[in-house]
Amino acid sequence: MERQNYTYGEIINQVEKWKIIYNDITGKDFVLHLKIFSDKYDEIIIFGCGSSYNLSKSASFFTKSMLPRQSCLALPSSELLINTDTYINENKKYLVVGFSRSGETTESIKVVRLLKNRRNVTTFTFSCKENNTISKFSDHHFLCRGVTEKSIVMTVSFSSMLIAYCMILIKFLDKKKMLEEFKCLIEYLNANIAILYDDIENYFKNNGTFNSYFVLGSGFNYGLAVEADLKMKEMSQTPSYSYHLYEFNHGPKSLINEESLCLILTLSKDLFKKEEIIKEILDLESKVLIIGRGNNINISDNNLKYLFPDFNFSFDIVGSFINIPVFHILAYIKTIKKNLNPDKPQNLNYTVVI
Amino acid sequence: MERQNYTYGEIINQVEKWKIIYNDITGKDFVLHLKIFSDKYDEIIIFGCGSSYNLSKSASFFTKSMLPRQSCLALPSSELLINTDTYINENKKYLVVGFSRSGETTESIKVVRLLKNRRNVTTFTFSCKENNTISKFSDHHFLCRGVTEKSIVMTVSFSSMLIAYCMILIKFLDKKKMLEEFKCLIEYLNANIAILYDDIENYFKNNGTFNSYFVLGSGFNYGLAVEADLKMKEMSQTPSYSYHLYEFNHGPKSLINEESLCLILTLSKDLFKKEEIIKEILDLESKVLIIGRGNNINISDNNLKYLFPDFNFSFDIVGSFINIPVFHILAYIKTIKKNLNPDKPQNLNYTVVI
Repeated sequence: MERQNYTYGEIINQVEKWKIIYNDITGKDFVLHLKIFSDKYDEIIIFGCGSSYNLSKSASFFTKSMLPRQSCLALPSSELLINTDTYINENKKYLVVGFSRSGETTESIKVVRLLKNRRNVTTFTFSCKENNTISKFSDHHFLCRGVTEKSIVMTVSFSSMLIAYCMILIKFLDKKKMLEEFKCLIEYLNANIAILYDDIENYFKNNGTFNSYFVLGSGFNYGLAVEADLKMKEMSQTPSYSYHLYEFNHGPKSLINEESLCLILTLSKDLFKKEEIIKEILDLESKVLIIGRGNNINISDNNLKYLFPDFNFSFDIVGSFINIPVFHILAYIKTIKKNLNPDKPQNLNYTVVI
Repeated sequence: MERQNYTYGEIINQVEKWKIIYNDITGKDFVLHLKIFSDKYDEIIIFGCGSSYNLSKSASFFTKSMLPRQSCLALPSSELLINTDTYINENKKYLVVGFSRSGETTESIKVVRLLKNRRNVTTFTFSCKENNTISKFSDHHFLCRGVTEKSIVMTVSFSSMLIAYCMILIKFLDKKKMLEEFKCLIEYLNANIAILYDDIENYFKNNGTFNSYFVLGSGFNYGLAVEADLKMKEMSQTPSYSYHLYEFNHGPKSLINEESLCLILTLSKDLFKKEEIIKEILDLESKVLIIGRGNNINISDNNLKYLFPDFNFSFDIVGSFINIPVFHILAYIKTIKKNLNPDKPQNLNYTVVI
C-alpha cells in the first residue's frame, strides 16, 4: 500500500504541475488581464477555506512584500461572509482574491455571489476544476490546468494555486529575474524530489517516531507552517501545532518534550538570534528538522538534522516553496507508518458543502 | 492546593481589576490624549507576543468593527520587527498599538525603539507594570493599574489590557450605551464568577475527562479562542487547538473523537447554519460546551451543555468578555485534576527575554 494511493502520486508529481502553470503564465497565449493589479485598491483581501485559507496567508504576505504601499489581509471565507460590513466598506475600493480547489465550497461561493455586483469590488479567483461555480461569479479567474486531485487531502492543489498567484503577480510587476528563479526551483525540485522522499524515509528509520509535531515559520512561511500542521493532523492523526518562529517561545513550547518533532521551515538570512531559538528547542530534548541553509547556522546536535542544506536561491520566497513537498512527504510517511490510509482521512469529505 | 496558588486568585478576582480600569477610563481625571484615534491613519497595526498577540487579534477585529473605513492588522511583535519594511511604508501614516504585561518583552521593546523617531508612526502601548521600558519609548501609554500578576501564565493581564483598549476606543467614539453595558458586564460577572467556578467544577465531575480540547470562535472571539487554547496548553499540558467557527469543518475536525471537548465561544445572532456545525461535532461523539445564548439554538444532546444560557447583552462584543473567565477556569480545573501546579507551567518563564 505504501505507494499505491492517489496521495503519493499527487505529492511526488506536483512539481510537474507547477511546470504547466509556469508555462501557461509565461507563455505567449497567456490571456489573463494582468491589469487586475494595476488599479489602485485601498485594500486587497485574500480568502479561502481550510488549506485555501492557509495559502491565502502566504499569498497576503507575498502581496505586501511585493507591493509595499498596499494594505492586504487574509481571511477565512466564512469570516468575510459573516462580517462583510466590517471588512468591506462602500467608500473604499477592493481587490478580493479567492482560492478554492473545486470552486464549489459553500462559503467561497457565497462570498463571490455576495460581492458580484458591488461597484467597489473586483474579484479574482483561482481553482483547479473547469467550469466551476466560483469562476462564473468572478470578474477574473485562473484555472490551474492539469491539477486534478483525487485525494481528499489537498496537496498539489495547495502548492499549485499558491505558485500560480505568486507568478502572476511577479509577471505583472515584470520581475524577470524572480520569474526565472521559479523556473530554476522547478528544475531543482524535479531533479531532487525522489531523493527527498528517500531522505525522509531514512530519517524516520534512523530517528524513530514522534508523538507531537510543531512547525515554525516566519513571514511567507507562516501560512505554510499552518498547512504543514493541518496535513499532519488530517492524514496521520498526530497532535500538530504551528507558530510564527519567535512566538513559539511565548507559551506554546510548554507542550514540547523528548517525543516531539519540531520542523523549522526555511530561514531567511536576516533573522535575529535564530540560533538561540533552535538551541532552546534542542534543550527541551525535541528532535529538530531544519529545511535548507543549514550552513548559516553553526549548531550540531544528535537531535538536529538539516534537509536540503545546500540549496540556494536569491529570493527567499522562491526558496520557500521547497518547504511544501518536505512537509507533504513527512505527513505522508508518518501516515503510512501508522497504517492509516492517506487517501481517506478521518471525518473528512472532498468538498465541504454546508 | 486546589485554591492555594496565585493563578486561582488572579482568575477569580480579575473582574475587580476590570472595575478599576472602567473607573479610571470613565473618571474625570482620565488624562489620556483621546485624540490618538482622531488622526487619519492609513493603517492601524496592533502587536504583542504570546497572549498579548492573541489579544491583539481581538483588538484588531474590534477596531475594524468600530472604525469601518480603517485598515487594521494584528501581528506578533517579532513579525513586525523582522519584516518592518513590508509592514511600515514611509509614505503611509500608522498608529501602532502594542501590548506587554511587563513592558519588558525583548521583541516588543525592539519594536517601539525602532519606531520611536519615525514621523509617520504614532505608538500607543498598554502594560500592567509601572515605569517599564516600553512605556518610555511610546508616544502614549496606558497602565492597567492594580493588575499585578504573580503567576507565569497571563490571565487577568490578558483580559484587563483587552478591556482597557476596547473601553478607550469606545470612550473616544463617545458610545455611551456601549460603555454603560461594560459596567453591567462587570456587575453581572462579579455576581456570577463564583457560581461559574462551581458550575465548571460540577461539569468535570459529571462528564469525566477529555484528552483533546478544541475552541471555536468567530470575529472578535477568534483571538479569545486562540488564547483559550494557549491557556489549556500552558497550564494543563493538554493537546489544544483553536479555529474560526466554520474553519473547523475544513480539515481540523479530522482529530476530533469521543475523548474531545469542544468549547464554542459566544455565538452572535446572525451566524448561518450554526446548528449544523454543532450537530456535526456532536455526531463525532465529542463533548460540546456552548457559552451563552443557548436559547437561540434548538439542540439538546447528552453530550451538549450550555454555560450562562440566560445572559443577554445588546452588544455582542461586550458579551464576548464572558468567555474569558470561562476558559480560564476550564484550564485551571483541568490543571488541578492532572495534579499539576498552575503557577508553574512546564518550560516557561515570566518574561521572555531573548
